[in-house]
This record gives sequence, C-alpha cells and structure tokens, in this order.
Amino acid sequence: MKIGILGYGNLGRGVEAAVKQNPDCELTAVFTRRDPSTVKILTAGVPVYNVSEVEKHKDEVDVLIICGGSATDLPKQTPEYAKYFNVIDSFDTHAKIPEHFANVDTVAKDFKHTALISCGWDPGLFSLNRLYANCILPNGKDYTFWGKGVSQGHSDAIRRIEGVKDGKQYTIPVQAALDAVRSGSNPDLTTRQKHTRECFVVAEEGADKARIEKEIKEMPNYFADYDTTVHFISEEELKKNHSGIPHGGFVIRSGKTGWDNEFNNVIEYSLKLDSNPAFTSSVLVAYARAVYRMNKEGQTGCKTVFDVAPAYLSPLSGEEIRAHLL
Amino acid sequence: MKIGILGYGNLGRGVEAAVKQNPDCELTAVFTRRDPSTVKILTAGVPVYNVSEVEKHKDEVDVLIICGGSATDLPKQTPEYAKYFNVIDSFDTHAKIPEHFANVDTVAKDFKHTALISCGWDPGLFSLNRLYANCILPNGKDYTFWGKGVSQGHSDAIRRIEGVKDGKQYTIPVQAALDAVRSGSNPDLTTRQKHTRECFVVAEEGADKARIEKEIKEMPNYFADYDTTVHFISEEELKKNHSGIPHGGFVIRSGKTGWDNEFNNVIEYSLKLDSNPAFTSSVLVAYARAVYRMNKEGQTGCKTVFDVAPAYLSPLSGEEIRAHLL
Repeated sequence: MKIGILGYGNLGRGVEAAVKQNPDCELTAVFTRRDPSTVKILTAGVPVYNVSEVEKHKDEVDVLIICGGSATDLPKQTPEYAKYFNVIDSFDTHAKIPEHFANVDTVAKDFKHTALISCGWDPGLFSLNRLYANCILPNGKDYTFWGKGVSQGHSDAIRRIEGVKDGKQYTIPVQAALDAVRSGSNPDLTTRQKHTRECFVVAEEGADKARIEKEIKEMPNYFADYDTTVHFISEEELKKNHSGIPHGGFVIRSGKTGWDNEFNNVIEYSLKLDSNPAFTSSVLVAYARAVYRMNKEGQTGCKTVFDVAPAYLSPLSGEEIRAHLL
Repeated sequence: MKIGILGYGNLGRGVEAAVKQNPDCELTAVFTRRDPSTVKILTAGVPVYNVSEVEKHKDEVDVLIICGGSATDLPKQTPEYAKYFNVIDSFDTHAKIPEHFANVDTVAKDFKHTALISCGWDPGLFSLNRLYANCILPNGKDYTFWGKGVSQGHSDAIRRIEGVKDGKQYTIPVQAALDAVRSGSNPDLTTRQKHTRECFVVAEEGADKARIEKEIKEMPNYFADYDTTVHFISEEELKKNHSGIPHGGFVIRSGKTGWDNEFNNVIEYSLKLDSNPAFTSSVLVAYARAVYRMNKEGQTGCKTVFDVAPAYLSPLSGEEIRAHLL
C-alpha cells in the first residue's frame, strides 16, 4: 500500500514513523506547502513535492494522509484532494463534522474515491468506545475525561497573553471524579469537578506575574470554569521538563442490566500516550489500510470510524485474526 | 426487529431483559428443550415453544439468539438453526472457533442467512480491543487479565471433588502485575504472576477438609499453576455472599511509536460486571441488530465481531451518531 503524506509537521512526521512500523505500507511521496528543497524527511529515497504538483502524482499514491489543521486547512484540503486520491484526515472540530462529512462525501462519490474523516483518538478511538458502550448498555451514562496531557489550544491561549514568552498547559482529570464514575454511582459532575488545569509559564523579563496569573485564571471558556494552577518557570526548565506532547484520557460508560436493572456494569477505555501526534498518526495509518481495501471493494464516499469493520484495519487475513485474536 | 431466544437459562433470561431495554427490539418467541408448559418467562404474552417446533415459527423471528453451551450445544445448534434463521451465538471455545466458523458459514450461505458467532465479551469485546490495539500499535505486547469474577469451569471442577457439597471460585488479577503492565515496561509474566484463585467451599459433613484443599490446590490445569486460597464456609454463607455471577477483566496493549520507538503508549480496556450472563446478553442483542441489518443488505454467511462495522450496532442513524458520538 502506497502512502502519501500531505503536510510535514508533527502529525506528518508521526505518519512517516508509523509507516515504517507497518511492513505492508510504503511511503511514496510527501507534499508540502513549503519550498520542497527546505523540507528534509527521514525516509531515504522518498521525494518531497510542492502541494501544487499533487495531481501529477495521483497514480503514485493509494491513500493520501492529510496532516493539516482542523481550523482552516482540512475543510478545504480534504474535499479538494478527494478528487485525486483516497484520503484520510483527523478533522476534530466536533461541531462541524456533519458539514465536513457532507462536503467530502460529495466529492469522494463523484470521483469514486474512499475518504475517512475525523480519525485519531478523539474523535476516533474514543468515539468508537462511546458507540460500542452506548449500544451495549442503552440504560447508562457516558463520561469522557482527558489527560493528563498537553492541550495545544490552551497552551496557545496562554502564549497570547501580554508578558508571556512561552507556556504549556496540562489538562488533568480529577482522581475523585474518576473514582466516583468507576464506582458505578453515575454522578453528575460539573466541568470544575472533572478536570483541573496546570500551567507552566515563562514570563518576559519584568512582566507583572500577578496580572498574568489573574488573566489566565479568569480567561472565559479556557480557564474560568476550572481550578487552575499557574507556575512561573525559566525558559530552560520549560524546555527540559515540558517539551513533550503527552496526552491520553478515559471513556467510561456505566449502566444497568437485568430485568429490574439490578446489575451494575462499568465499561472503561483509556489511553496513556507519550506523544499525542505520534499515536494519532498510528491510528491514521491503520485506517489508511481500511480505506485502501474498502475502495478496492467499491465502497466509495465519505466514511468515519463507525463505518469501518475492524477486520479492515489488520494486515492479517480473516482466518488469522479469528484464530489468534478472537 | 423480532428476536427469538433458544434456551432459557441464565443467558436466555439475560437476553429477555436486554430486549426490554431496546425499544426497537421485540421478543416474539422462546424455544426450549424442556416441556414448554414448565417454562415461565417474564415477558407478558410471548409464547414458549418446544425446540422441535422451531421450523414452524421461522417467519416470526428476524434473529434467533442461541443461548446454549459451547461444549456440546452450540457446535450442533448454530449450524442447524442457521437453516431457518439469522442466528447469533456466544461460542467461546477459542481453539475450536475456526471449525465452528466454517460449519456455520456453509449453512448460512446456502440458506442466505447471516450468522454471528463468538459474540459476548471474551470472545467479543475483548477480541475487538485486541484487534484495534494490535493494528494501531504493531510494535507492542498484549495482556489480558480476567476478573475479579466467578469462573464457572473452575467452580464446577471444585464441585466434582469428593466431599464437596458446593463451591464457587473467583479468578483475581494480581494488582502488581496490572501495575507493571500499565507502566509500559512490557513485563514477561508467568501464569502464577498474573492471576490468583480464591475458592469458597461447602464441605459435606465429616469430609476431610485438608484432603479437599490439597486436591483443589494440586489440580492440574485448573489450580496447580496458580496461588490458590481455599475457604471453607457454610451453605448459608455461600448462598448469602457468593450467589452472584460477577466478572470482568482487562485487555491492555503497550507499545512504542516514533521514528526510533522513543514514545511509549498504553491502551487499556476494562469491564466490571455485576452479572456476566446479563452483560453478555446485552452484547448479543446489540449485535443481533447488526445481523438483522447486514442480512437485509445481502451480507450473508458467518461473521464475527471483526466483520461488523460499529454503526450497525446502533439504533441511531449515521447522521445521528456522527453528530452526537463522534
């Protein structure tokens, strides 16, 4: 299976590494908006092209993994490149998924390609677990916790404050809330009860730290509804201890079974990831295999993880997965 | 969707309760090997027939959920009833799945029915999680822990010992082993390091308890490879404290991502179930919905959970699940 990467940032580099782990996959091209001569990739012998040349290379790629951002890149890129390729993206603006789906579906169907949107872990694996658990325990309640991990959006919000040179924000699930959910008591939890936020901030020299801390803690939507801790540290400390992009989280559904709802059940799914983009990329590559196969079977149009039978993800045959994994 | 139940034991009763929780499902018939007049079911107005009459009622049932045992019932029943119905079973003899699959597949294809075998939580949801995690983290290691829960097989083994009136066995995962796996250290664990076994035994009056304990602890395959604790208790105590059938467990895959395998990742799925058969039944009913739909689309033959796109399990439309669960 020939994989193309569009966009060589953290996610694109993750896809490159994931392709290396899958012997049935081969990286055949990287497309970038930058000058290709300035982009050095790790895989020997693979060409880097400018994105303007993408159409010329459409027969060299079975699945194009689009590694753009959800805010402005993917809404344009995924429908555009679905003209030339089977495509897959990690579009994660939950509220705009129906619109993005419709746009991609039209093009993919017209051009007889298969597209998969919103793939990764949330949306993606977490969505799958919400769906499975909801179908199995219709009488129950869902909980999603994120972290401990770095939120890029919240880190960006800190860095926009005057006097802040750099900063990193961790989202942390509250242990007491997790314990209450796991007990099966189906608690009602406020935003504040579920997560705390911890910020590591490098202030500009002479900046008013008290004002920065106040601005962070009172920032609407981002921090005001949470218990937030702010630590001022040096630039060296930030680099040394907070340069990673770990993440993870928990999807829990607790629900009742039995004629009189007398039995309690807790289904829990969790991820603990040293690198958010490297893991997301690994999910994208597994689903690229599914996209490739579904297209070969004539299943065209836009799909999500909900539409993909799990067997399509595996390099093994049906006989092998039944014998070894069932 | 009209559901039929074949076999009205713990699992059949669980299916009956699960059908009640799903408004798009209706129980239309229960089939039993017993004299139907002796079988009282909970759902008002639903007939109980002897299994010999099953063919007469084939048009009254969209999916027949076969609630027999894996040792002798299902290998005969599932291929037999796939002649008349779309069928689903919870066949759990892992080593014989390929053979059972082939037998059921032939009949289901001949009669244009859809069959799903080995559905439940292990095999079933645990298998799904092994598959997803293996595809996403090809460079990693799988761990499955069972419990804390009642093992019927081990409880039966205890009850076969001379001088034992009744008994119940709990399989318990070792916390230190779970912790080691969750740390991402990919430990090699022996059978003894992963689980302990705890037995609650009611001895016949005058029985030699020391001998019973020794026989349990030294029983090959069942107990000899484990650290086993034996408690002798009264019949009343057993009834009062050990009459439930709780179970659960953990599927964990720990693996590396990144160009130099520099990032660690842990994917964990766990279940905590007050009643093993009631939960298994809930899984069966969700998958019965998938079987019904796949049959309407012409997807006949034998399937496993690996072949079922998750969307088929949900009573909601594609639009709804994309908007609310993705």
